Amino acid sequence: MAKTDWKAEAKSLKKKVKALKASAAPSILEAAAPAAKKAKIVSPLAPKDGFPKLPIIRGVEFSAAEAGVKYLNRKDVMLIRLAPGTAMAGVFTTSSTRSGCVRDCQAKLATKVPAGAGAAIIVNSGNSNAFTGKVGDEAVAAVTGGVATALGIPASRVFSSSTGVIGEPLPHVRITAKIPELVSGLALDGIEMAAHAMMTTDTFPKGATAQVQGDGGVIQIAGIAKGSGMIAPDMATMLVYLFTDAKISPTALQKMLSRNVGPTFNSITVDSDTSTSDTLLLAATGQSEAAEVKGPVAKAFEAALKAVMHDLALQVIRDGEGATKLVEIRVTGAASETDAAKAAFAIANSPLVKTALAGQDPNWGRIVAAIGKSGAVADRDLLTIRFGDVVVAKNGWRNPAYREEDGAAHFQQEEILIRVDMGLGRAARTVWTCDLTNRYIEINADYRS
Amino acid sequence: MAKTDWKAEAKSLKKKVKALKASAAPSILEAAAPAAKKAKIVSPLAPKDGFPKLPIIRGVEFSAAEAGVKYLNRKDVMLIRLAPGTAMAGVFTTSSTRSGCVRDCQAKLATKVPAGAGAAIIVNSGNSNAFTGKVGDEAVAAVTGGVATALGIPASRVFSSSTGVIGEPLPHVRITAKIPELVSGLALDGIEMAAHAMMTTDTFPKGATAQVQGDGGVIQIAGIAKGSGMIAPDMATMLVYLFTDAKISPTALQKMLSRNVGPTFNSITVDSDTSTSDTLLLAATGQSEAAEVKGPVAKAFEAALKAVMHDLALQVIRDGEGATKLVEIRVTGAASETDAAKAAFAIANSPLVKTALAGQDPNWGRIVAAIGKSGAVADRDLLTIRFGDVVVAKNGWRNPAYREEDGAAHFQQEEILIRVDMGLGRAARTVWTCDLTNRYIEINADYRS
Repeated sequence: MAKTDWKAEAKSLKKKVKALKASAAPSILEAAAPAAKKAKIVSPLAPKDGFPKLPIIRGVEFSAAEAGVKYLNRKDVMLIRLAPGTAMAGVFTTSSTRSGCVRDCQAKLATKVPAGAGAAIIVNSGNSNAFTGKVGDEAVAAVTGGVATALGIPASRVFSSSTGVIGEPLPHVRITAKIPELVSGLALDGIEMAAHAMMTTDTFPKGATAQVQGDGGVIQIAGIAKGSGMIAPDMATMLVYLFTDAKISPTALQKMLSRNVGPTFNSITVDSDTSTSDTLLLAATGQSEAAEVKGPVAKAFEAALKAVMHDLALQVIRDGEGATKLVEIRVTGAASETDAAKAAFAIANSPLVKTALAGQDPNWGRIVAAIGKSGAVADRDLLTIRFGDVVVAKNGWRNPAYREEDGAAHFQQEEILIRVDMGLGRAARTVWTCDLTNRYIEINADYRS
Repeated sequence: MAKTDWKAEAKSLKKKVKALKASAAPSILEAAAPAAKKAKIVSPLAPKDGFPKLPIIRGVEFSAAEAGVKYLNRKDVMLIRLAPGTAMAGVFTTSSTRSGCVRDCQAKLATKVPAGAGAAIIVNSGNSNAFTGKVGDEAVAAVTGGVATALGIPASRVFSSSTGVIGEPLPHVRITAKIPELVSGLALDGIEMAAHAMMTTDTFPKGATAQVQGDGGVIQIAGIAKGSGMIAPDMATMLVYLFTDAKISPTALQKMLSRNVGPTFNSITVDSDTSTSDTLLLAATGQSEAAEVKGPVAKAFEAALKAVMHDLALQVIRDGEGATKLVEIRVTGAASETDAAKAAFAIANSPLVKTALAGQDPNWGRIVAAIGKSGAVADRDLLTIRFGDVVVAKNGWRNPAYREEDGAAHFQQEEILIRVDMGLGRAARTVWTCDLTNRYIEINADYRS
């Protein structure tokens, strides 16, 4: 009998131990002791440096308070005051069952702004006030009206968001009771606290920033977001608030926001579900020393705004429920933009692709199947599939030079790039997603409590 | 530096692996030891009485053999011989990356049938021969050609299916080598064995039957199916073969099949994924003593055929990967058929609804959200949601009389009925699905081995 290679044996066993620990750790611990679930777990994909240092944006003040809407012993409501003259823009969920807050924001953005009016945003976590009928609409009116009175601004300039359990009446009195405390606490440097106050199943607060050289001064952009599933009506809506001190008209601002939401927030998917409350608001206070945004500065400003949006969108995926992989899916060579999007999202949303990612299995057959079912025009013999730079399949078959271990090595990384060239045209689309793990099931199969 | 004692290291690691395995629950055991996975696990939703007693269908013979395509020590290839004059009909996956077998079946069904020709079906498990390029097409020709020669029928009348891993060349010689054995084993009573031979991740073989009183005799219908995910290109394609001794023209047969595939096989979803190989073939041998199917008999025959298709479709859901709940989603009152289907499938495919089902959590908010994202016209204030007969939500809000414990009691059942009335029109659609559990992740995240 051959001599045992103990070194190789030890190495293989080490891997086994690692795999066992990885698969065992949270899921089993939690199954055994639900109490342990409350322990703070941070996504393995969270930015290594923590919450970024965000600049003060002139004309934007923040505060947060413990209203006890649902959560105890944590800040769950936050208020943002925006200086007189602030231009507002927004993009919202297209859900036909969207919440009262969303409908109210949409109506207010369509309303003519009184000259020089200030504005405010109030956000609570713990209750989404969605599917709560007319009682819900009354709660929105009570909360935004209360803020309007306290800050001396028109109610048509107070925007609100609610995130949390669906279908339960919002205990809005708990929020209005905190308005005096919120107003007195307003401060220019409270943005991180505000990012914390709106978290639900998020495992880390999300922030991003960029600067642009304007004419006569620097323009600052900063944003915060929450979200760790594209949805989860009782917990994981996506809310995003962006701030800048740029001087810019509401019309120009809205155009820039609308143009860039497609390749950023509308190109991410955790679980293919869409929230009833998704809200993205952008406020420009005009208090920078720089002149009005136009010409080349407008271009640079839009690029910087897009970068902040992209950064926050990817942070939402990094906090995807149960995520262990950040996955970019890059489709090129499609016959049309629609086809490129169909193929990219079919791959990103396929439970079979997502479970293969979780299992670090470079199962390219599932990618072929996802493209096949997507409805996009596809020709088997023209498809090229790459993992990073590794050519996996082409000419209607597995690349003869492809070695499974190369694909496996790519899938062991924390960040994975799946490239599909359809070989038909010039249309392209890139989307981002995460893997589908047991932890996602545990988070979402857990009885609301 | 001290020399590492790899033997000691390996021994200590072995202990660690043993301890970890011991401390872990079943999921971990399986991740660590794929062998354990081979243990026979039968879906908790499997029919309590096992495989039904299926009648002999005159003119249909079956055999099966161990070809060792991938699996060892089990039958993995089956042959069906159909008497001269058999009328054939078929429905296939719409995937644009569908397999060579599927393309071949489609081409053959479109070909004029030589008068009085017999027919045959050959099916293997273990390899789907999908995305295998021209080599794959050659394998289909070799297998169907071999059967044609052995049985003395035209190659255009030999249909084939392959199910199993994708992208690997089909070792077709292992199959053709077994053709003599398959031919000599053909027997009228081999249908259950054939149902077994095509199983992959299926946990039980699926069969159904119905009888119709024809003019001058009884008409028999019997069918078998495999499938335990709508897909899983490397394992869980849906294959269905239906047989009858009815006298009926291929045109009439095809019409009946096409009409009834919508409310049966096209109304089930395990994971929203579509296989590259889904195949449904229906053969009518004409050997019943009953006269040609027409008039009221045609109606009764079509109803019986639909009942068999419905039964098999639900058995596929009952064997859904990891399923613990059989869920019927009944949408009524939609503005159009398309909207009814959109809403029903959005609910059935929502990972959040499916995880709530797994957790026995009557989380109706997720149903509202799924309807909202579906793209179907919906009015929050007109929706009515019921769990069985329990009215959960209406008039844009939770039903005041709804008690959470009533919803919870319904969700604790093995079979769950979710009813949504959109309150807008008269269109309706019913679909069936199962829950999404950790076991689904385990089955699909496991590295192909």
